[in-house]
Amino acid sequence: MSWEDNVRRVVPYTPGEQPRIKNLIKLNTNECPYPPAPQVAEKLKSINYEDLRLYPDPQASALASAISGYYHVPMDQVFVGVGSDDVISMAFMAFFNSDRPILFPDVTYSFYDVWANLHGIPFERVPLDCDFKLVREGFLKENGGIIFPNPNAPTGIYEDISFVEDIVKNNPDVVVIVDEAYIDFGGKSALPLIDKYENLLIVQTFSKSRAMAGMRIGYAFGSKKLIGYLQDVKFSFNSYTMNRPSLEVGAAALQDDEYFKDVCGKIIKTRERVKGRLRELGFDFTDSMANFIFARHRTIPGKDIAGDLRLKGIIVRRWDADRISDYLRISIGTDEEMDKLLIALKEIVA
Amino acid sequence: MSWEDNVRRVVPYTPGEQPRIKNLIKLNTNECPYPPAPQVAEKLKSINYEDLRLYPDPQASALASAISGYYHVPMDQVFVGVGSDDVISMAFMAFFNSDRPILFPDVTYSFYDVWANLHGIPFERVPLDCDFKLVREGFLKENGGIIFPNPNAPTGIYEDISFVEDIVKNNPDVVVIVDEAYIDFGGKSALPLIDKYENLLIVQTFSKSRAMAGMRIGYAFGSKKLIGYLQDVKFSFNSYTMNRPSLEVGAAALQDDEYFKDVCGKIIKTRERVKGRLRELGFDFTDSMANFIFARHRTIPGKDIAGDLRLKGIIVRRWDADRISDYLRISIGTDEEMDKLLIALKEIVA
Repeated sequence: MSWEDNVRRVVPYTPGEQPRIKNLIKLNTNECPYPPAPQVAEKLKSINYEDLRLYPDPQASALASAISGYYHVPMDQVFVGVGSDDVISMAFMAFFNSDRPILFPDVTYSFYDVWANLHGIPFERVPLDCDFKLVREGFLKENGGIIFPNPNAPTGIYEDISFVEDIVKNNPDVVVIVDEAYIDFGGKSALPLIDKYENLLIVQTFSKSRAMAGMRIGYAFGSKKLIGYLQDVKFSFNSYTMNRPSLEVGAAALQDDEYFKDVCGKIIKTRERVKGRLRELGFDFTDSMANFIFARHRTIPGKDIAGDLRLKGIIVRRWDADRISDYLRISIGTDEEMDKLLIALKEIVA
Repeated sequence: MSWEDNVRRVVPYTPGEQPRIKNLIKLNTNECPYPPAPQVAEKLKSINYEDLRLYPDPQASALASAISGYYHVPMDQVFVGVGSDDVISMAFMAFFNSDRPILFPDVTYSFYDVWANLHGIPFERVPLDCDFKLVREGFLKENGGIIFPNPNAPTGIYEDISFVEDIVKNNPDVVVIVDEAYIDFGGKSALPLIDKYENLLIVQTFSKSRAMAGMRIGYAFGSKKLIGYLQDVKFSFNSYTMNRPSLEVGAAALQDDEYFKDVCGKIIKTRERVKGRLRELGFDFTDSMANFIFARHRTIPGKDIAGDLRLKGIIVRRWDADRISDYLRISIGTDEEMDKLLIALKEIVA
């Protein structure tokens, strides 16, 4: 016998590359190309370093109440975590404790199966249809819980609120998690449904539309009961997950709604412009409502294009996975960055 | 059936109170009464808010390499997390997957049984002796893993490195975690033992001696293999746990060793002075080597003293638990704070 016999062996999630080389065009991890709201800069400057000696508020009240106020959701229906990954991982632990498999799309955020494996949760992948759309019927079979992103990743396809409601309504005996990491780029949140369905958890993040991937702030909304259970698990894992700067800076990020809407609007505008140009260059793509485009060239393998882009200092994301190996997931950068991408692609596909 | 049937029901850890009232003397959560190193202030000011739009380095290299350099431990033997609670919770998940119970002292950090319950790990409490000392033989029975703090909390009693080695050497088939949150206040770390024992994890924190409870930084050392397994679990839970400010500010905190040693020295000096005065006031206490004193009055119940202190604006920690219900855990504050405490206690016990 050895101590290694009792080790939990897992194959971890592989995050998108975070290169240390400067001057790359980094379109591989769906970061926001614009800085956070100006209030974030001010708040960051005003943090009193002496206060760092004290534990943060374990209830994360400053941040949770800012989120509560912004979204008009009572405090006891708000949960915050270290990025939406932390929120979802805690939710898997809290809610997916059945012998029946949880369900998620076959093409989706590639952390879901990693979490299921980590926490020992059986799972089943529900195939998307041939247009990469979610299939309603796939989520109506017996299950131990459901999670899907809306818009889905990496396809970017958005399903409207009636689709979400249909799935939640027909699965009253399990928790349904809707991962809305990309909801601010043209979709409409299913948030109003939490008043109607006790078993619905809506997860969002500061990492994309609020330009704060570096601060690690995610949050979730649900019924008071659902959020209470999630808090119990969180407080059984780590009482103080959010550090002082994240609480202060996170709250500040919500103060400037005009700036927020302007950033989202610019990204949407750039996305739609780039879609048009990609079509001219021989690419097919889904109608992404996220801050990325999921595209493949009609004749050239995705792997070749990604490799050639890399030689030109441009990084995009690609997976060696069934159905999608020829696709590139291209984050929406600034107009200048996207113009450089388009020039590079034009040379590559010429 | 209901969605609630599949919810993980847990009784969360109760952290020490974090009151919002100012001007209290807060001696209840073992925070450092002195500010972090001056380099922390400078670094905090220099953070570029625009970079917050980008994910942090998932490897946390800036921080891990600063820790690696300070402690002379190779990078691949260093793990960092969101406070030592995060590190230990991940370690429970990674290493304690046996049907046999894990062992920890009956009087110890009250998060251990919460983590065991959260992760579904059987456990057994090993009684301390009548002087609150760890009992070697208690940790030699069959088990699925071992964890104890050194110095132990809330007793503050330190066991020397030969005691730790004895337990590690005699438990080669399980992982032994030594929680050294309070090691810098007079003890000597068991860190050198990681070169000899592959199954030993040493956990430390920035929250006490480095005056950074508000930043949430913990770390651990172990064999390359052990740390590798722990990283796999961490990367299966949340890729980006450490936000950008914590990486930068954490690294800065290690730069000023003179300041660090001065702070620890001051706390030790205050602790020893207060011990003498407490004895005069009729208190008994363990010989704490931590940044707190664990004391009970010879005649007055702990609950009464804690309540009276509270009326005077002084908060200490107390547990309604077997063997220790008359004890107060009093964090070491500044000399001025401790003088106020001693005046208050004198009035209370008079």
